[in-house]
Amino acid sequence: MNVYDKWQTVRMNNDRAETFADIVATELPLTIMINGEEFATIVCSPTNLDELALGFLAAEGVIRRVDDVSSLQVDEKRGFVYVELTKHLDNMHVDHSKRFIGSCCGKSRQFYFKSDVQTARTVQHNLTIDATQCLHLIRLLHERSTFFKQTGGVHNAALCTKEGLLEVRTDIGRHNALDKLYGYMLRHETTPHNKVIAFSGRISSEVLLKVSKMNVAVIISTSAPTSLALQLAEDLHITTIGFAREQSMNIYTHAERIKEANDSVLES
Amino acid sequence: MNVYDKWQTVRMNNDRAETFADIVATELPLTIMINGEEFATIVCSPTNLDELALGFLAAEGVIRRVDDVSSLQVDEKRGFVYVELTKHLDNMHVDHSKRFIGSCCGKSRQFYFKSDVQTARTVQHNLTIDATQCLHLIRLLHERSTFFKQTGGVHNAALCTKEGLLEVRTDIGRHNALDKLYGYMLRHETTPHNKVIAFSGRISSEVLLKVSKMNVAVIISTSAPTSLALQLAEDLHITTIGFAREQSMNIYTHAERIKEANDSVLES
Repeated sequence: MNVYDKWQTVRMNNDRAETFADIVATELPLTIMINGEEFATIVCSPTNLDELALGFLAAEGVIRRVDDVSSLQVDEKRGFVYVELTKHLDNMHVDHSKRFIGSCCGKSRQFYFKSDVQTARTVQHNLTIDATQCLHLIRLLHERSTFFKQTGGVHNAALCTKEGLLEVRTDIGRHNALDKLYGYMLRHETTPHNKVIAFSGRISSEVLLKVSKMNVAVIISTSAPTSLALQLAEDLHITTIGFAREQSMNIYTHAERIKEANDSVLES
Repeated sequence: MNVYDKWQTVRMNNDRAETFADIVATELPLTIMINGEEFATIVCSPTNLDELALGFLAAEGVIRRVDDVSSLQVDEKRGFVYVELTKHLDNMHVDHSKRFIGSCCGKSRQFYFKSDVQTARTVQHNLTIDATQCLHLIRLLHERSTFFKQTGGVHNAALCTKEGLLEVRTDIGRHNALDKLYGYMLRHETTPHNKVIAFSGRISSEVLLKVSKMNVAVIISTSAPTSLALQLAEDLHITTIGFAREQSMNIYTHAERIKEANDSVLES
């Protein structure tokens, strides 16, 4: 299955109609089976489905490392991934998307799913990065986003060092693009401490929690964050940068990791 | 709780850093309880939560009309909606997001959730609309999208007649904005036959299925569709229009409802 499809389309331009073959993003329903039982169905772009399954299961708290999986088979044509774990599923199957209710104390974290309480973590790295490096990474992501330019329908997430992009993953779903990167990191036991993520989608709480689980300290997006994502980022020590454009960007949390902002704050 | 929040932000412009209070979209985790049991948790913008719950439950196939709900109470502060149904939940609780496997015959519909098989329907209306009317509706939606301009973080969905917008709903989640409209329609028993939807988000399969459940014949979006959404739209007799801009738009399916396209196709 291709990442995109052609579709016979009528284009109206003022009063003029013409038909042409437009390029649209493919969307695959993918059901993840664990030890023979149906776990979840997600819709995604049909690339890197093995990584997607690994990343998704890690983000849901079902696995912690690749060793927890004894086999993983992708049936792309029918839209299934068959995962065998080296352990039983316990009650996670039932509980993974259950609401978590914290203490009433105002200091409690803003987690809302039980699985996040177990898997999200405070990011401890002392990584620093220049604002110019952040903007360079976003420029590189743009250059790689040829597919997005064609279809307007997909998001990109890139695992980066300070100097450049290591791996780029694409998906119609923002979360899936991140899960594919997460799966890559698990499989290759990638050190997260010196990495940052460049991202084309909005930074929602779900996106922020995934970054925390990946144990990456900095996320740079071309788009907007939500307030809940920022509260979580503050608490989990993640640097969130939004609206990264040609020459400018907004640093919402933990600006101490961005060299120029740090200098400026120290001066004032 | 407000739809947006202020957040102290460091803006980097080239090498210059300045702090300012940016406006970011609020995100509320909302847990829907049915007859005292936890059904689902969604993250959303804190507006029209009663409509959101009604629309979500209808889209999931739990209710068919407002009469199926005997009481609905919103606790916005804690992020809960308590719904009491006039019936038992049966096995829907377990099955609502289970994968549906159709026959192997090539003509089978592209449904992937069991609940969609029961709730999605072919839209039968003979509504026609001018391309100029479609573009006018998108222009009106833009004018109403002041919040989006402020935060870059929300989507808008409008229930429209051919002449103008009736109701606009806003949410950080594309699906939620549609569910809020669906809830409005259920509550007011709105006739869907002469309505169209103007939308700021991508037309994914999930979006298309919601439009089908709302029994609305035309969706006009400023953004892109996916190929699975278009296959479903073809099958369910829904007119999908994407990339609607100032002067142009793409008609992907059932162009016979758009007057100018129809004339042009008849001529050729």
